[in-house]
Amino acid sequence: MPKIIVEVMPKADLLDPAGKAVANALQRKGNAEISNVRIGKRIELHYAHTPTEADLAAAKQIAADFLSNGVIEDVVNVTVEN
Amino acid sequence: MPKIIVEVMPKADLLDPAGKAVANALQRKGNAEISNVRIGKRIELHYAHTPTEADLAAAKQIAADFLSNGVIEDVVNVTVEN
Repeated sequence: MPKIIVEVMPKADLLDPAGKAVANALQRKGNAEISNVRIGKRIELHYAHTPTEADLAAAKQIAADFLSNGVIEDVVNVTVEN
Repeated sequence: MPKIIVEVMPKADLLDPAGKAVANALQRKGNAEISNVRIGKRIELHYAHTPTEADLAAAKQIAADFLSNGVIEDVVNVTVEN
């Protein structure tokens, strides 16, 4: 199944309480080398055909307009995966 | 900031109602070529140092045991990003 993968993360300035809770739990369990955890979204767009350059450009637009909230989130990656 | 990225997706057999809702909305907006959407998680583990092979192995274990629910989710990728 050809896919375009959109990766969305909370902005760096923003507190991520769920990520912080996971980081604290990992440190309590003895993973001292993990200094922080942030939790974002990985969204798969499925296509019937191999995505073209136009599909990728459209997906980047969709990622910015529709799949992320620009006030609190950054789109970090939009990539084709066949 | 060196990171290990853990990607977790709902299992393929599983209904993903949020993804389905996004797919329907995109199709209504005229993106007929997107047949389906699935929404998973992208988790960043931050390290003070460049992650070693041992860190990557530990992260894979953490991803399977702690960051994903094996009943409903698959860990699709665990990768180092410097």
